[in-house]
Amino acid sequence: MNRVYLDHNATTPLRAEARAAMVAAMDVYGNPSSVHAEGRAAKAVIEKARGQVAAALGADGADVVFTSSATEAAALCCAGRGFHGALVEHDAVSAWVEPDLPVNANGGVTVTDPAASVLQLANSETGVVQDLPEGLALSDMTQAFGKLPLAFNWSGATAALVSAHKLGGPKGVGALVIRRGTDIAAQLKGGGQEMGRRAGTENVIGIAGFGAAAEVAARDLAEGRWDRVAVLRDKLETTLAELAPETIFVGKDAQRLPNTSCFATPGWKGETQVMQMDLAGFAISAGSACSSGKVRASKVLTAMGYDEDVAAGAIRVSLGLETEEDDVMRFAEAWAAKQKKFHARAA
Amino acid sequence: MNRVYLDHNATTPLRAEARAAMVAAMDVYGNPSSVHAEGRAAKAVIEKARGQVAAALGADGADVVFTSSATEAAALCCAGRGFHGALVEHDAVSAWVEPDLPVNANGGVTVTDPAASVLQLANSETGVVQDLPEGLALSDMTQAFGKLPLAFNWSGATAALVSAHKLGGPKGVGALVIRRGTDIAAQLKGGGQEMGRRAGTENVIGIAGFGAAAEVAARDLAEGRWDRVAVLRDKLETTLAELAPETIFVGKDAQRLPNTSCFATPGWKGETQVMQMDLAGFAISAGSACSSGKVRASKVLTAMGYDEDVAAGAIRVSLGLETEEDDVMRFAEAWAAKQKKFHARAA
Repeated sequence: MNRVYLDHNATTPLRAEARAAMVAAMDVYGNPSSVHAEGRAAKAVIEKARGQVAAALGADGADVVFTSSATEAAALCCAGRGFHGALVEHDAVSAWVEPDLPVNANGGVTVTDPAASVLQLANSETGVVQDLPEGLALSDMTQAFGKLPLAFNWSGATAALVSAHKLGGPKGVGALVIRRGTDIAAQLKGGGQEMGRRAGTENVIGIAGFGAAAEVAARDLAEGRWDRVAVLRDKLETTLAELAPETIFVGKDAQRLPNTSCFATPGWKGETQVMQMDLAGFAISAGSACSSGKVRASKVLTAMGYDEDVAAGAIRVSLGLETEEDDVMRFAEAWAAKQKKFHARAA
Repeated sequence: MNRVYLDHNATTPLRAEARAAMVAAMDVYGNPSSVHAEGRAAKAVIEKARGQVAAALGADGADVVFTSSATEAAALCCAGRGFHGALVEHDAVSAWVEPDLPVNANGGVTVTDPAASVLQLANSETGVVQDLPEGLALSDMTQAFGKLPLAFNWSGATAALVSAHKLGGPKGVGALVIRRGTDIAAQLKGGGQEMGRRAGTENVIGIAGFGAAAEVAARDLAEGRWDRVAVLRDKLETTLAELAPETIFVGKDAQRLPNTSCFATPGWKGETQVMQMDLAGFAISAGSACSSGKVRASKVLTAMGYDEDVAAGAIRVSLGLETEEDDVMRFAEAWAAKQKKFHARAA
């Protein structure tokens, strides 16, 4: 039996178009900072990708600063700024912000001072989507980019974080997107790359992959390919609610990403569920991948008002464009059977 | 006529083994932080590469922290530390250090307080190699790694910077190598990647390429393949000295990298030479690639005591393992002819 990968919010396979663009870029060997023909050819690869990412994100005219990850983009935008944020933000953002914005039971965040606040567009664990207030300093669009129709230029945000590997590009490439004219001081210093905002020879091959993946992701989104995934996700939840009626679904009443389901079984640790399902052939997660390994309650769920027992018993199932109904149904049955065993042991 | 690429210190083509490792890693799609099988497979790719880089650098037992560039590694090691350094350091290092260490006419640097100082192992523009004092805080080994026999563990340095793309790996991957037990605070925060020293999902594909390139680079070095390159470099300089006797060779009396030649024609701007040679089919550079675009005298040469006229008229020719005698001789003739024209116009 083939394994079933249902952890697409952690990372999703490289798209064929990204692979092709990366393999092609392997032959472009100049240093993009060199003025000779070989250097200009490498620079052209980067600028093509910059245009692709900007177009896919609805950010034409904004500055796309390529980084090595959304994490680096968060540090570049947030360090030393003292922004306000909520506890539902990803660790890469919350590392830099005052976690003082209130979160309601559906995961919604209230922003009082947009110009001094960060707010994610979609949560990685629950899929909950936020309304961004006009004039927001920064939005983490990492999970939304490619899965939700969105245009940076119309989002109300002054800056955004995005990552290649969440939409079928390679790991190790991200970007900080900023409205032109916004001041950002470089943290990596030395060369004058990325308009002086980020020194260091560029990841040409990875950036080429990001550009190609973003372009195809935007096309897939426009063609409605995520609608089918949302139907599958809903079917998963309906099936689980039937097979395992004690299951607590998180964020179900909020607007969510089309592919994400978060559900909890109080007392059955998320980490244990992940390991049991891994052995059974299914890849899922408890909390975000970056915080996995740390066995603890999800701070996203506790921020929404769930108690520790629920928050520590939550898992995330995140579907991809290639996920089939059979994958989802097999998972639902296998998981519900394990949950039944857990309840039998606990009784 | 094929173009001749003589700018290998700026960046060198991707090695076949690096390409193969990267293409293989494209199928490993898990997030290295995920605990399931797909995540563990991705983690294994990184750990294999970490071992390859450590072995190639003679750094077994040291910590190899993968970064997005030597520039990022420099920031990680140097920011806020107030190290002493010399003006011959790369901009990525000198951005963070007090440039107060003396440089002699051969490019040699005197270090007085090793534990609070940085010193490059080899200079990117001149190829001049330094003797590292015992207990040195940090050495930039970016240009030396793969071209000079060296072992980090015997170098006397507590930490080192290296970069994949200087030895045939991809651009956008570097590492900070540190003796185990040395304290380094993360600058990119969020996830617990790289033993908590550098958050952000890892560039799995690029890291795989770095590992493979480092392994083959070490093998090529051990097999003496750079000896042939040193002979070619010396032949280039002998030929130029005959064809263009006014040429000033920089660092020729010092121990140098086997592939690097730096020479100046006072009054004939390096940038102009780069452009003229580019049009003639040769890729060379004036200063390091990262500072190209900025038309100014090389600070490396002025630190060695050359006046502005010489420093602004210098170019760097850097050979690769595949460089042929014919490439070098064609360059010498073409360049000497242009120099003759320059002198005729200037007269």
